[in-house]
Amino acid sequence: MIETDILIIGAGPTGLFAVFEAGLLQLKCHLIDALPQAGGQCSEIYPKKPIYDIPGFPEVLAGDLVDNLMEQIKPFEPGFTLGERAQTIDTLEDGTFVVTTNKGTKHHAPVVAIAGGLGSFEPRKPPLDNLKRYEDNGLAYIIKDPEVYRNKKVVIAGGGDSALDWSIFLTDVASEVTLVHRRNEFRGALDSVEKVQQLKNQGKINLITPAEVTALHGAEKLEGISISKTANAQEDILLETDSFIPLFGLSPKLGPIADWGLDIERNAIKVNTFDYQTNVPGIYAIGDVNTYPGKLKLILCGFHEATLMCQSAYQRIHPDKKYVMKYTTVGGVTGFDGSKKEAPKAVVKAIE
Amino acid sequence: MIETDILIIGAGPTGLFAVFEAGLLQLKCHLIDALPQAGGQCSEIYPKKPIYDIPGFPEVLAGDLVDNLMEQIKPFEPGFTLGERAQTIDTLEDGTFVVTTNKGTKHHAPVVAIAGGLGSFEPRKPPLDNLKRYEDNGLAYIIKDPEVYRNKKVVIAGGGDSALDWSIFLTDVASEVTLVHRRNEFRGALDSVEKVQQLKNQGKINLITPAEVTALHGAEKLEGISISKTANAQEDILLETDSFIPLFGLSPKLGPIADWGLDIERNAIKVNTFDYQTNVPGIYAIGDVNTYPGKLKLILCGFHEATLMCQSAYQRIHPDKKYVMKYTTVGGVTGFDGSKKEAPKAVVKAIE
Ligand SMILES: Cc1cc2nc3c(=O)[nH]c(=O)nc-3n(C[C@H](O)[C@H](O)[C@H](O)COP(=O)(O)OP(=O)(O)OC[C@H]3O[C@@H](n4cnc5c(N)ncnc54)[C@H](O)[C@@H]3O)c2cc1C
Ligand SMILES: Cc1cc2nc3c(=O)[nH]c(=O)nc-3n(C[C@H](O)[C@H](O)[C@H](O)COP(=O)(O)OP(=O)(O)OC[C@H]3O[C@@H](n4cnc5c(N)ncnc54)[C@H](O)[C@@H]3O)c2cc1C
Repeated sequence: MIETDILIIGAGPTGLFAVFEAGLLQLKCHLIDALPQAGGQCSEIYPKKPIYDIPGFPEVLAGDLVDNLMEQIKPFEPGFTLGERAQTIDTLEDGTFVVTTNKGTKHHAPVVAIAGGLGSFEPRKPPLDNLKRYEDNGLAYIIKDPEVYRNKKVVIAGGGDSALDWSIFLTDVASEVTLVHRRNEFRGALDSVEKVQQLKNQGKINLITPAEVTALHGAEKLEGISISKTANAQEDILLETDSFIPLFGLSPKLGPIADWGLDIERNAIKVNTFDYQTNVPGIYAIGDVNTYPGKLKLILCGFHEATLMCQSAYQRIHPDKKYVMKYTTVGGVTGFDGSKKEAPKAVVKAIE
Repeated sequence: MIETDILIIGAGPTGLFAVFEAGLLQLKCHLIDALPQAGGQCSEIYPKKPIYDIPGFPEVLAGDLVDNLMEQIKPFEPGFTLGERAQTIDTLEDGTFVVTTNKGTKHHAPVVAIAGGLGSFEPRKPPLDNLKRYEDNGLAYIIKDPEVYRNKKVVIAGGGDSALDWSIFLTDVASEVTLVHRRNEFRGALDSVEKVQQLKNQGKINLITPAEVTALHGAEKLEGISISKTANAQEDILLETDSFIPLFGLSPKLGPIADWGLDIERNAIKVNTFDYQTNVPGIYAIGDVNTYPGKLKLILCGFHEATLMCQSAYQRIHPDKKYVMKYTTVGGVTGFDGSKKEAPKAVVKAIE
């Protein structure tokens, strides 16, 4: 059982910043995310695109914003359960919560903050038989650790940025990279499209288009796939491979959280604007996942909501203590890792 | 009469960021501030100190944050009325407002956003006779334009960062710099204290401590001051000077805004959390100046409030239009100055 003060579901920008605000209050956080990495939409959908409305950044790449947030929260040593979806919540007799993931990992905390964005990102799967049989046995919809593919034969399917970028990346890792797409045209950053063209010309990417994967083969584990060249029904290919990675995008689903007894309105969780608490005391909802009159689904709003939420969580966890807010400039930042940042102090000194 | 869409009172971080959010909605802003420069508390009180809780900045100097905000809002060409205090507000028949400053400058807008922080920063004045007579005639409490002192004799009084830093700065501008303080000890950044000591040793700053200025002299304009060396009552000095600048700190006063008919609670303006509007429709209050349940006087909260406020202001100004929010990453930023920032577009391109 993982124990923490605030269990945060969703490691997008809102959940990450909550770790910082909680840390200032000496509260520890643990985050669960269905994705293999932190950053939510910023990391998964548009890491290399600029955002212009983060206050104080005339321009910042979404991926850099996430890196900055990770750096900012480092002193507060957040725990992470990545690649798992928060599935069920149980309320214990003392009012604390146990959240269990789809893989059975259990987390226990007096406060739960749902920062689930548009929902848990779930991969779009290809319409093939026997998917379940090969999942984690050669078939994957998300690349968690590219080292898994070292010196293996890999087939990627898809026509967007993920398919392009992972094909490029894996040419340095896998023994063989095949890219299958149902059109000749790819949609992505110009750089990426050109790089794939170049790797194809050099024979480092085996390009099969327009084509679709039609069947998976193998006894214990994936051993091969059937590919149909769609322009020519005659031309079916049987390809030996160790892994098949269809990258057809992720679609967010509020998913299991919708069944947690929370007031839901148009796919979002209703909260008050005092502390962004839901109808269940001790469960808060912050960032894109919540709704209230005037709500805007913007990153900067999630930051504010996370901050007010933490103050309230503090009162719930320490009902007898009174927290007196100190500006970070004045009080500094004292990490759980023993680090201390603080402004240079003024001196009082005679001039003679 | 200065015409604008949103008249912002207070050019602190909250007011500045409101310009950006308004600009995204194609609304123009004009800011009034009692101080000679933008940035509010960040610029006036702690420009060289680090802030640790601005999301995405593990550390940022308050002055740099203001510079970044100024850069971010540049495309939206805000107007500024600096060094003047918003004094009165009149509601016209059509529901628009005219705000007049203490110097008589008039501003006309359909929406007023009060981002006045802790209030208008008013200088603490020394307890001397005839202050009024010499104000703007050799006597100043704030340095607006240091060039005014070029080749002049200047006396600065005070023992804090402002007195130290301006004394240092003016040694390169004025013909003579005298620093008077009622103690031998100064309170400020170690660097500044040491630099003043060094300039004093080099004869570039004439240091008179412990001492107090006791009288101002001059017919039309300031010509001299009396200084009493407080350690020795006998030793009174009559010093010829062109200017006297007592830098005894600024204290914020909600001031005239308190009489504008707005609901006030503990020196702050009450607002709702839907759009941060006050009890007077069309007048909003954002940042440190407002209050609502859960309110935290933090910069990041002002950013959120400014953003929601602008959406509501848009509806007030364009009651017939429906605004569909576009992410900056998707829609880019189109400045009033003709500039355009946008994310590189994805291409759709065949790979052969
Ligand atoms: C193309 C694009 C451009 C954008 N541009 C801007 C912009 O310019 N400015 C701006 O402010 N915003 C922009 N946004 C929106 C911004 O990205 C979101 O507002 C922000 O990511 C919300 O952050 P969050 O932390 O609330 O949620 P998210 O970033 O959505 O993160 C939520 C995380 O929670 C996880 N999760 C959800 N449910 C579960 C569960 N049950 N178990 C485990 N994990 C779960 C998800 O996997 C996800 O990683 C843009 C979005 C997109 C898609
Ligand atoms: C030493 C110190 C350290 C701090 N550290 C932090 C920190 O670490 N993190 C954090 O989030 N916050 C911190 N703060 C607080 C932060 O500076 C404020 O929250 C922030 O400045 C508020 O911004 P604002 O724009 O709402 O108001 P302000 O910055 O106060 O600006 C308001 C402006 O309005 C002007 N004004 C008011 N009334 C009038 C009028 N009638 N006419 C004309 N002008 C008027 C004032 O002159 C002022 O310039 C700190 C503050 C101090 C003093």
